Amino acid sequence: MTQLRLVIGNKNYSSWSLRPWLALKQFGVQFEEIRIPLYTPETASQLQEYSPSKKVPVLLDNNQSIWDSLAICEYLAEEFPDLHWWPEDKINRALARSISAEMHSGFLNLRQNMPMNCRAKFPGKGLTSEVQKDIDRITSIWQEFRQKFAADGDMLFGKFTIADAMFAPVVLRFVTYDVQLDHISRKYAEAILELPAMQEWIEAAKQETEVLLQYELYV
Amino acid sequence: MTQLRLVIGNKNYSSWSLRPWLALKQFGVQFEEIRIPLYTPETASQLQEYSPSKKVPVLLDNNQSIWDSLAICEYLAEEFPDLHWWPEDKINRALARSISAEMHSGFLNLRQNMPMNCRAKFPGKGLTSEVQKDIDRITSIWQEFRQKFAADGDMLFGKFTIADAMFAPVVLRFVTYDVQLDHISRKYAEAILELPAMQEWIEAAKQETEVLLQYELYV
Ligand SMILES: N[C@@H](CCC(=O)N[C@@H](CS)C(=O)NCC(=O)O)C(=O)O
Ligand SMILES: N[C@@H](CCC(=O)N[C@@H](CS)C(=O)NCC(=O)O)C(=O)O
Repeated sequence: MTQLRLVIGNKNYSSWSLRPWLALKQFGVQFEEIRIPLYTPETASQLQEYSPSKKVPVLLDNNQSIWDSLAICEYLAEEFPDLHWWPEDKINRALARSISAEMHSGFLNLRQNMPMNCRAKFPGKGLTSEVQKDIDRITSIWQEFRQKFAADGDMLFGKFTIADAMFAPVVLRFVTYDVQLDHISRKYAEAILELPAMQEWIEAAKQETEVLLQYELYV
Repeated sequence: MTQLRLVIGNKNYSSWSLRPWLALKQFGVQFEEIRIPLYTPETASQLQEYSPSKKVPVLLDNNQSIWDSLAICEYLAEEFPDLHWWPEDKINRALARSISAEMHSGFLNLRQNMPMNCRAKFPGKGLTSEVQKDIDRITSIWQEFRQKFAADGDMLFGKFTIADAMFAPVVLRFVTYDVQLDHISRKYAEAILELPAMQEWIEAAKQETEVLLQYELYV
Protein backbone atom coordinates (compact mmCIF):
# COMPACT_ATOMS: atom_id res chain seq x y z
CA MET A 1 0.00 0.00 0.00
CA THR A 2 1.47 3.33 -1.01
CA GLN A 3 1.80 6.07 1.53
CA LEU A 4 0.81 9.41 0.05
CA ARG A 5 1.78 12.75 1.51
CA LEU A 6 0.85 16.14 0.05
CA VAL A 7 3.02 19.17 0.78
CA ILE A 8 0.98 22.36 0.60
CA GLY A 9 1.34 26.06 1.45
CA ASN A 10 -0.88 28.31 3.54
CA LYS A 11 -4.47 27.30 2.94
CA ASN A 12 -5.54 30.93 2.92
CA TYR A 13 -3.28 31.87 0.04
CA SER A 14 -1.96 28.86 -1.86
CA SER A 15 -4.26 28.46 -4.82
CA TRP A 16 -2.14 25.81 -6.53
CA SER A 17 -2.09 23.70 -3.35
CA LEU A 18 -5.87 23.57 -3.19
CA ARG A 19 -6.19 21.71 -6.50
CA PRO A 20 -4.67 18.29 -5.70
CA TRP A 21 -5.77 18.58 -2.05
CA LEU A 22 -9.40 19.00 -3.11
CA ALA A 23 -9.18 16.21 -5.67
CA LEU A 24 -7.68 13.76 -3.15
CA LYS A 25 -10.45 14.60 -0.67
CA GLN A 26 -13.21 14.39 -3.28
CA PHE A 27 -12.05 10.99 -4.46
CA GLY A 28 -11.67 9.75 -0.89
CA VAL A 29 -7.98 8.97 -1.17
CA GLN A 30 -6.17 8.93 2.17
CA PHE A 31 -3.10 11.14 2.48
CA GLU A 32 -1.02 12.88 5.07
CA GLU A 33 -0.82 16.67 4.82
CA ILE A 34 2.41 18.61 5.31
CA ARG A 35 1.78 22.34 5.53
CA ILE A 36 4.69 24.71 4.90
CA PRO A 37 3.84 28.36 5.53
CA LEU A 38 5.21 30.36 2.58
CA TYR A 39 7.64 33.30 2.76
CA THR A 40 9.01 32.69 6.25
CA PRO A 41 12.74 32.53 7.02
CA GLU A 42 12.44 28.71 7.13
CA THR A 43 10.37 28.25 3.97
CA ALA A 44 13.23 27.85 1.51
CA SER A 45 14.95 25.11 3.51
CA GLN A 46 11.65 23.34 4.19
CA LEU A 47 10.69 23.39 0.51
CA GLN A 48 14.17 22.22 -0.46
CA GLU A 49 13.57 18.99 1.44
CA TYR A 50 10.63 17.95 -0.75
CA SER A 51 10.32 20.12 -3.81
CA PRO A 52 12.64 20.18 -6.85
CA SER A 53 10.81 23.29 -8.14
CA LYS A 54 11.00 24.91 -4.68
CA LYS A 55 7.25 25.41 -4.92
CA VAL A 56 4.16 23.76 -3.50
CA PRO A 57 2.22 21.53 -3.98
CA VAL A 58 4.36 18.39 -4.03
CA LEU A 59 3.06 14.84 -3.76
CA LEU A 60 5.28 12.34 -1.99
CA ASP A 61 4.57 8.77 -2.95
CA ASN A 62 6.84 6.65 -0.77
CA ASN A 63 9.33 9.54 -0.76
CA GLN A 64 9.25 10.04 -4.54
CA SER A 65 8.50 13.72 -5.21
CA ILE A 66 5.99 14.52 -7.94
CA TRP A 67 5.31 18.21 -8.33
CA ASP A 68 3.09 20.73 -10.04
CA SER A 69 -0.64 20.65 -9.34
CA LEU A 70 -1.66 19.41 -12.80
CA ALA A 71 1.03 16.73 -13.02
CA ILE A 72 0.12 15.51 -9.52
CA CYS A 73 -3.50 15.12 -10.61
CA GLU A 74 -2.46 13.22 -13.76
CA TYR A 75 -0.34 10.91 -11.63
CA LEU A 76 -3.20 10.22 -9.23
CA ALA A 77 -5.57 9.64 -12.17
CA GLU A 78 -3.23 6.89 -13.34
CA GLU A 79 -2.76 5.48 -9.84
CA PHE A 80 -6.49 5.21 -9.14
CA PRO A 81 -8.07 4.48 -12.53
CA ASP A 82 -11.30 3.14 -11.02
CA LEU A 83 -12.04 6.54 -9.48
CA HIS A 84 -12.21 8.24 -12.90
CA TRP A 85 -10.38 11.47 -12.17
CA TRP A 86 -11.02 12.48 -15.79
CA PRO A 87 -14.26 12.00 -17.77
CA GLU A 88 -14.55 8.46 -19.14
CA ASP A 89 -15.52 9.44 -22.68
CA LYS A 90 -12.46 10.11 -24.83
CA ILE A 91 -13.56 13.45 -26.26
CA ASN A 92 -14.90 14.70 -22.95
CA ARG A 93 -11.59 13.76 -21.35
CA ALA A 94 -9.75 15.72 -24.06
CA LEU A 95 -11.99 18.74 -23.43
CA ALA A 96 -11.47 18.47 -19.67
CA ARG A 97 -7.73 18.48 -20.30
CA SER A 98 -8.07 21.43 -22.72
CA ILE A 99 -9.76 23.65 -20.15
CA SER A 100 -7.50 22.41 -17.35
CA ALA A 101 -4.33 23.17 -19.30
CA GLU A 102 -5.77 26.51 -20.46
CA MET A 103 -6.37 27.35 -16.79
CA HIS A 104 -2.94 26.09 -15.80
CA SER A 105 -1.05 28.34 -18.20
CA GLY A 106 -3.29 31.36 -18.50
CA PHE A 107 -5.43 33.97 -16.79
CA LEU A 108 -2.41 35.87 -15.53
CA ASN A 109 -4.30 39.13 -15.14
CA LEU A 110 -6.86 37.52 -12.88
CA ARG A 111 -4.15 35.81 -10.86
CA GLN A 112 -2.13 38.95 -10.36
CA ASN A 113 -4.96 41.32 -9.55
CA MET A 114 -7.18 38.98 -7.56
CA PRO A 115 -4.85 36.75 -5.54
CA MET A 116 -6.54 33.95 -3.63
CA ASN A 117 -7.24 35.00 -0.06
CA CYS A 118 -9.98 32.84 1.46
CA ARG A 119 -10.74 34.88 4.56
CA ALA A 120 -10.60 38.37 3.00
CA LYS A 121 -13.35 40.43 1.37
CA PHE A 122 -12.31 43.03 -1.20
CA PRO A 123 -15.53 43.59 -3.13
CA GLY A 124 -15.03 45.28 -6.49
CA LYS A 125 -11.25 45.46 -6.17
CA GLY A 126 -8.87 44.34 -8.90
CA LEU A 127 -11.39 44.45 -11.72
CA THR A 128 -9.38 45.91 -14.61
CA SER A 129 -10.62 45.45 -18.18
CA GLU A 130 -7.95 42.77 -18.72
CA VAL A 131 -9.18 40.92 -15.61
CA GLN A 132 -12.73 41.16 -16.92
CA LYS A 133 -11.59 39.43 -20.13
CA ASP A 134 -10.18 36.57 -18.07
CA ILE A 135 -13.44 36.35 -16.10
CA ASP A 136 -15.47 36.35 -19.33
CA ARG A 137 -13.47 33.47 -20.77
CA ILE A 138 -13.72 31.46 -17.53
CA THR A 139 -17.47 31.94 -17.25
CA SER A 140 -17.95 31.08 -20.93
CA ILE A 141 -16.17 27.77 -20.19
CA TRP A 142 -18.37 27.17 -17.15
CA GLN A 143 -21.53 27.98 -19.08
CA GLU A 144 -20.65 25.72 -21.97
CA PHE A 145 -19.90 22.64 -19.89
CA ARG A 146 -22.61 23.16 -17.28
CA GLN A 147 -25.20 23.38 -20.06
CA LYS A 148 -23.82 20.33 -21.81
CA PHE A 149 -23.70 18.20 -18.65
CA ALA A 150 -26.63 19.69 -16.72
CA ALA A 151 -28.36 16.31 -16.57
CA ASP A 152 -25.36 14.47 -15.11
CA GLY A 153 -24.64 16.43 -11.92
CA ASP A 154 -23.57 19.93 -10.92
CA MET A 155 -19.86 19.81 -11.73
CA LEU A 156 -18.33 20.85 -15.09
CA PHE A 157 -18.62 17.36 -16.59
CA GLY A 158 -21.49 16.28 -14.37
CA LYS A 159 -19.57 14.48 -11.67
CA PHE A 160 -16.41 15.89 -10.08
CA THR A 161 -13.23 15.63 -12.19
CA ILE A 162 -9.77 17.18 -12.20
CA ALA A 163 -11.22 20.06 -14.25
CA ASP A 164 -13.24 21.15 -11.21
CA ALA A 165 -10.16 20.97 -9.02
CA MET A 166 -8.36 23.24 -11.49
CA PHE A 167 -11.10 25.88 -11.35
CA ALA A 168 -11.90 25.69 -7.61
CA PRO A 169 -9.34 28.36 -6.62
CA VAL A 170 -10.98 30.73 -9.13
CA VAL A 171 -14.29 30.26 -7.33
CA LEU A 172 -12.65 31.45 -4.11
CA ARG A 173 -11.22 34.50 -5.90
CA PHE A 174 -14.68 35.35 -7.22
CA VAL A 175 -16.04 35.24 -3.66
CA THR A 176 -13.28 37.41 -2.20
CA TYR A 177 -13.56 40.10 -4.88
CA ASP A 178 -17.35 39.71 -5.17
CA VAL A 179 -17.25 39.19 -8.93
CA GLN A 180 -20.68 39.44 -10.58
CA LEU A 181 -21.62 36.21 -12.34
CA ASP A 182 -24.33 35.06 -14.73
CA HIS A 183 -26.86 32.59 -13.36
CA ILE A 184 -25.21 29.39 -14.59
CA SER A 185 -21.75 30.41 -13.39
CA ARG A 186 -23.12 31.43 -9.99
CA LYS A 187 -24.83 28.07 -9.58
CA TYR A 188 -21.60 26.29 -10.46
CA ALA A 189 -19.58 28.44 -8.03
CA GLU A 190 -22.11 27.64 -5.30
CA ALA A 191 -21.88 23.92 -6.02
CA ILE A 192 -18.09 24.07 -5.68
CA LEU A 193 -18.35 26.04 -2.42
CA GLU A 194 -20.78 23.48 -0.98
CA LEU A 195 -18.39 20.56 -1.41
CA PRO A 196 -17.53 19.39 2.12
CA ALA A 197 -13.83 19.42 1.29
CA MET A 198 -14.07 23.05 0.16
CA GLN A 199 -15.75 23.94 3.44
CA GLU A 200 -13.01 22.13 5.32
CA TRP A 201 -10.29 24.03 3.40
CA ILE A 202 -11.94 27.41 3.96
CA GLU A 203 -12.44 26.76 7.68
CA ALA A 204 -8.79 25.78 8.05
CA ALA A 205 -7.72 28.88 6.09
CA LYS A 206 -9.66 31.07 8.51
CA GLN A 207 -7.81 29.50 11.44
CA GLU A 208 -4.42 30.39 9.98
CA THR A 209 -2.66 33.38 11.50
CA GLU A 210 0.02 34.17 8.90
CA VAL A 211 -0.46 37.38 6.93
CA LEU A 212 1.34 37.62 3.59
CA LEU A 213 1.21 41.19 2.38
CA GLN A 214 1.92 40.29 -1.27
CA TYR A 215 -1.53 38.66 -1.35
CA GLU A 216 -3.26 41.49 0.55
CA LEU A 217 -3.27 44.01 -2.29
CA TYR A 218 -6.22 46.08 -1.14
CA VAL A 219 -5.91 46.51 2.66
CA MET B 1 -8.80 6.60 -40.12
CA THR B 2 -8.88 9.92 -38.33
CA GLN B 3 -8.00 13.07 -40.18
CA LEU B 4 -5.82 15.32 -38.04
CA ARG B 5 -5.31 19.02 -38.67
CA LEU B 6 -3.19 21.33 -36.54
CA VAL B 7 -3.94 25.05 -36.45
CA ILE B 8 -0.81 27.05 -35.65
CA GLY B 9 0.36 30.66 -35.63
CA ASN B 10 3.38 32.26 -37.27
CA LYS B 11 6.27 29.81 -37.08
CA ASN B 12 8.67 32.62 -36.30
CA TYR B 13 6.84 33.69 -33.16
CA SER B 14 4.34 31.11 -31.94
CA SER B 15 6.16 29.18 -29.25
CA TRP B 16 3.07 27.29 -28.08
CA SER B 17 2.34 26.14 -31.65
CA LEU B 18 5.76 24.56 -32.01
CA ARG B 19 5.17 22.02 -29.22
CA PRO B 20 2.45 19.77 -30.70
CA TRP B 21 3.75 20.41 -34.25
CA LEU B 22 7.19 19.10 -33.29
CA ALA B 23 5.75 16.13 -31.40
CA LEU B 24 3.53 15.13 -34.35
CA LYS B 25 6.52 15.33 -36.71
CA GLN B 26 8.85 13.46 -34.35
CA PHE B 27 6.37 10.62 -33.89
CA GLY B 28 5.71 10.48 -37.64
CA VAL B 29 1.99 11.17 -37.36
CA GLN B 30 0.47 12.61 -40.54
CA PHE B 31 -1.45 15.87 -40.20
CA GLU B 32 -2.52 18.83 -42.23
CA GLU B 33 -1.22 22.21 -41.14
CA ILE B 34 -3.39 25.34 -41.03
CA ARG B 35 -1.31 28.45 -40.41
CA ILE B 36 -3.08 31.57 -39.13
CA PRO B 37 -0.82 34.64 -38.97
CA LEU B 38 -1.42 36.31 -35.59
CA TYR B 39 -2.48 39.91 -34.98
CA THR B 40 -3.81 40.69 -38.46
CA PRO B 41 -7.27 42.20 -39.08
CA GLU B 42 -8.50 38.70 -40.04
CA THR B 43 -6.92 36.77 -37.17
CA ALA B 44 -9.83 36.99 -34.75
CA SER B 45 -12.41 35.68 -37.22
CA GLN B 46 -10.05 32.95 -38.43
CA LEU B 47 -9.32 31.79 -34.88
CA GLN B 48 -13.02 31.91 -34.04
CA GLU B 49 -13.66 29.23 -36.63
CA TYR B 50 -11.48 26.65 -34.88
CA SER B 51 -10.48 27.77 -31.41
CA PRO B 52 -12.72 28.06 -28.34
CA SER B 53 -9.89 29.80 -26.47
CA LYS B 54 -9.24 32.10 -29.47
CA LYS B 55 -5.62 31.00 -29.31
CA VAL B 56 -3.37 28.63 -31.20
CA PRO B 57 -2.49 25.77 -31.31
CA VAL B 58 -5.69 23.81 -31.87
CA LEU B 59 -5.91 20.20 -32.99
CA LEU B 60 -8.85 19.26 -35.18
CA ASP B 61 -9.68 15.57 -35.08
CA ASN B 62 -12.48 15.09 -37.58
CA ASN B 63 -13.64 18.64 -36.83
CA GLN B 64 -13.55 18.20 -33.03
CA SER B 65 -11.41 21.03 -31.58
CA ILE B 66 -8.92 20.14 -28.86
CA TRP B 67 -6.84 23.06 -27.69
CA ASP B 68 -3.90 24.04 -25.55
CA SER B 69 -0.49 22.65 -26.43
CA LEU B 70 -0.20 20.37 -23.39
CA ALA B 71 -3.74 18.99 -23.66
CA ILE B 72 -3.22 18.32 -27.38
CA CYS B 73 -0.10 16.30 -26.58
CA GLU B 74 -1.96 14.32 -23.89
CA TYR B 75 -4.73 13.58 -26.38
CA LEU B 76 -2.26 12.37 -29.00
CA ALA B 77 -0.45 10.26 -26.39
CA GLU B 78 -3.75 8.48 -25.74
CA GLU B 79 -4.57 8.18 -29.46
CA PHE B 80 -1.23 6.64 -30.39
CA PRO B 81 -0.25 4.59 -27.32
CA ASP B 82 2.27 2.46 -29.23
CA LEU B 83 4.35 5.53 -30.01
CA HIS B 84 5.03 6.22 -26.31
CA TRP B 85 4.68 9.98 -26.20
CA TRP B 86 5.49 9.82 -22.49
CA PRO B 87 8.18 7.66 -20.81
CA GLU B 88 6.96 4.10 -20.29
CA ASP B 89 8.08 3.79 -16.68
CA LYS B 90 5.43 5.12 -14.28
CA ILE B 91 7.71 7.31 -12.19
CA ASN B 92 9.60 8.65 -15.21
CA ARG B 93 6.26 9.47 -16.81
CA ALA B 94 5.22 11.35 -13.65
CA LEU B 95 8.50 13.28 -13.69
CA ALA B 96 8.10 14.10 -17.38
CA ARG B 97 4.65 15.44 -16.58
CA SER B 98 6.00 17.40 -13.59
CA ILE B 99 8.57 19.28 -15.68
CA SER B 100 6.13 19.70 -18.56
CA ALA B 101 3.43 21.19 -16.35
CA GLU B 102 6.02 23.33 -14.54
CA MET B 103 7.08 24.66 -17.95
CA HIS B 104 3.48 25.13 -19.04
CA SER B 105 2.52 27.34 -16.10
CA GLY B 106 5.76 29.08 -15.23
CA PHE B 107 8.85 30.94 -16.42
CA LEU B 108 6.90 34.10 -17.08
CA ASN B 109 9.93 36.35 -16.81
CA LEU B 110 11.75 34.40 -19.50
CA ARG B 111 8.67 34.41 -21.71
CA GLN B 112 8.11 38.12 -21.39
CA ASN B 113 11.67 39.29 -21.79
CA MET B 114 12.86 36.76 -24.34
CA PRO B 115 9.93 36.14 -26.69
CA MET B 116 10.47 33.42 -29.27
CA ASN B 117 11.70 34.88 -32.55
CA CYS B 118 13.42 32.22 -34.65
CA ARG B 119 15.07 34.43 -37.23
CA ALA B 120 16.25 37.26 -34.92
CA LYS B 121 19.51 37.62 -33.01
CA PHE B 122 19.46 39.76 -29.88
CA PRO B 123 22.57 38.56 -28.03
CA GLY B 124 22.61 39.51 -24.35
CA LYS B 125 19.22 41.23 -24.44
CA GLY B 126 16.45 40.55 -21.93
CA LEU B 127 18.70 39.02 -19.28
CA THR B 128 17.31 40.47 -16.05
CA SER B 129 18.08 38.77 -12.73
CA GLU B 130 14.55 37.31 -12.69
CA VAL B 131 15.09 35.89 -16.19
CA GLN B 132 18.39 34.40 -15.02
CA LYS B 133 16.50 32.60 -12.23
CA ASP B 134 14.17 31.06 -14.82
CA ILE B 135 17.16 30.01 -16.94
CA ASP B 136 18.88 28.49 -13.90
CA ARG B 137 15.82 26.41 -13.05
CA ILE B 138 15.42 25.24 -16.65
CA THR B 139 19.06 24.24 -16.99
CA SER B 140 18.97 22.46 -13.63
CA ILE B 141 16.07 20.38 -15.00
CA TRP B 142 17.98 19.66 -18.22
CA GLN B 143 21.12 18.69 -16.29
CA GLU B 144 19.27 16.39 -13.95
CA PHE B 145 17.47 14.41 -16.63
CA ARG B 146 20.28 14.39 -19.18
CA GLN B 147 22.61 12.94 -16.54
CA LYS B 148 20.06 10.36 -15.47
CA PHE B 149 19.25 9.22 -19.02
CA ALA B 150 22.62 9.82 -20.69
CA ALA B 151 22.87 6.16 -21.69
CA ASP B 152 19.45 6.03 -23.38
CA GLY B 153 19.70 8.79 -26.00
CA ASP B 154 20.19 12.56 -26.12
CA MET B 155 16.68 13.75 -25.20
CA LEU B 156 15.55 14.52 -21.63
CA PHE B 157 14.35 10.98 -20.97
CA GLY B 158 16.66 9.35 -23.52
CA LYS B 159 14.33 9.13 -26.45
CA PHE B 160 12.06 12.00 -27.54
CA THR B 161 8.94 12.54 -25.37
CA ILE B 162 6.38 15.30 -24.86
CA ALA B 163 8.75 16.82 -22.28
CA ASP B 164 11.19 17.68 -25.09
CA ALA B 165 8.39 19.23 -27.13
CA MET B 166 7.52 21.42 -24.13
CA PHE B 167 11.10 22.71 -23.80
CA ALA B 168 11.93 23.05 -27.52
CA PRO B 169 10.69 26.67 -27.75
CA VAL B 170 13.00 27.56 -24.87
CA VAL B 171 15.94 26.23 -26.87
CA LEU B 172 15.06 28.68 -29.66
CA ARG B 173 14.86 31.54 -27.17
CA PHE B 174 18.32 30.63 -25.85
CA VAL B 175 19.69 30.80 -29.41
CA THR B 176 18.09 34.17 -30.21
CA TYR B 177 19.28 35.84 -27.01
CA ASP B 178 22.58 33.92 -27.00
CA VAL B 179 22.12 32.65 -23.45
CA GLN B 180 25.29 31.14 -21.95
CA LEU B 181 24.78 27.50 -21.01
CA ASP B 182 26.69 24.87 -19.08
CA HIS B 183 28.12 21.96 -21.08
CA ILE B 184 25.26 19.50 -20.52
CA SER B 185 22.54 22.04 -21.30
CA ARG B 186 24.38 23.18 -24.42
CA LYS B 187 24.64 19.60 -25.67
CA TYR B 188 20.92 19.11 -25.06
CA ALA B 189 20.04 22.35 -26.85
CA GLU B 190 22.17 21.26 -29.81
CA ALA B 191 20.44 17.87 -29.94
CA ILE B 192 17.05 19.59 -30.07
CA LEU B 193 18.22 21.97 -32.80
CA GLU B 194 19.51 19.05 -34.87
CA LEU B 195 16.14 17.31 -35.01
CA PRO B 196 15.05 17.40 -38.69
CA ALA B 197 11.62 18.71 -37.68
CA MET B 198 13.23 21.61 -35.78
CA GLN B 199 15.30 22.47 -38.85
CA GLU B 200 12.14 22.37 -40.94
CA TRP B 201 10.31 24.70 -38.52
CA ILE B 202 13.20 27.18 -38.39
CA GLU B 203 13.56 27.24 -42.18
CA ALA B 204 9.84 27.89 -42.59
CA ALA B 205 10.00 30.64 -39.93
CA LYS B 206 12.76 32.35 -41.90
CA GLN B 207 10.57 32.34 -45.02
CA GLU B 208 7.76 34.17 -43.22
CA THR B 209 7.40 37.85 -43.94
CA GLU B 210 5.12 39.05 -41.13
CA VAL B 211 6.75 41.27 -38.49
CA LEU B 212 5.05 41.44 -35.09
CA LEU B 213 6.52 44.30 -33.12
CA GLN B 214 5.36 42.96 -29.76
CA TYR B 215 7.85 40.12 -30.20
CA GLU B 216 10.63 42.38 -31.50
CA LEU B 217 11.52 43.98 -28.16
CA TYR B 218 15.10 44.91 -28.97
CA VAL B 219 15.16 46.26 -32.54
N1 LIG C 1 2.73 25.34 -11.56
C1 LIG C 1 2.90 25.13 -10.16
C2 LIG C 1 2.90 26.45 -9.43
C3 LIG C 1 3.17 26.33 -7.96
C4 LIG C 1 3.36 27.66 -7.25
O1 LIG C 1 3.65 28.69 -7.86
N2 LIG C 1 3.20 27.64 -5.91
C5 LIG C 1 3.38 28.81 -5.07
C6 LIG C 1 2.38 28.88 -3.95
S1 LIG C 1 0.70 28.84 -4.44
C7 LIG C 1 4.71 28.71 -4.36
O2 LIG C 1 5.13 27.63 -3.97
N3 LIG C 1 5.39 29.83 -4.13
C8 LIG C 1 6.57 29.85 -3.33
C9 LIG C 1 7.69 30.54 -4.02
O3 LIG C 1 7.58 30.80 -5.23
O4 LIG C 1 8.70 30.79 -3.32
C10 LIG C 1 1.79 24.19 -9.70
O5 LIG C 1 0.75 24.11 -10.37
O6 LIG C 1 1.96 23.46 -8.71
N1 LIG D 1 -1.83 27.66 -23.04
C1 LIG D 1 -2.01 27.84 -24.47
C2 LIG D 1 -1.45 29.18 -24.88
C3 LIG D 1 -1.68 29.52 -26.33
C4 LIG D 1 -1.28 30.94 -26.70
O1 LIG D 1 -1.16 31.84 -25.85
N2 LIG D 1 -1.09 31.16 -28.04
C5 LIG D 1 -0.76 32.48 -28.57
C6 LIG D 1 0.26 32.37 -29.70
S1 LIG D 1 1.76 31.58 -29.29
C7 LIG D 1 -1.98 33.07 -29.22
O2 LIG D 1 -2.77 32.36 -29.83
N3 LIG D 1 -2.14 34.39 -29.15
C8 LIG D 1 -3.18 35.07 -29.87
C9 LIG D 1 -3.97 35.94 -28.99
O3 LIG D 1 -3.80 35.87 -27.76
O4 LIG D 1 -4.76 36.72 -29.54
C10 LIG D 1 -1.34 26.69 -25.17
O5 LIG D 1 -0.44 26.06 -24.59
O6 LIG D 1 -1.73 26.32 -26.28
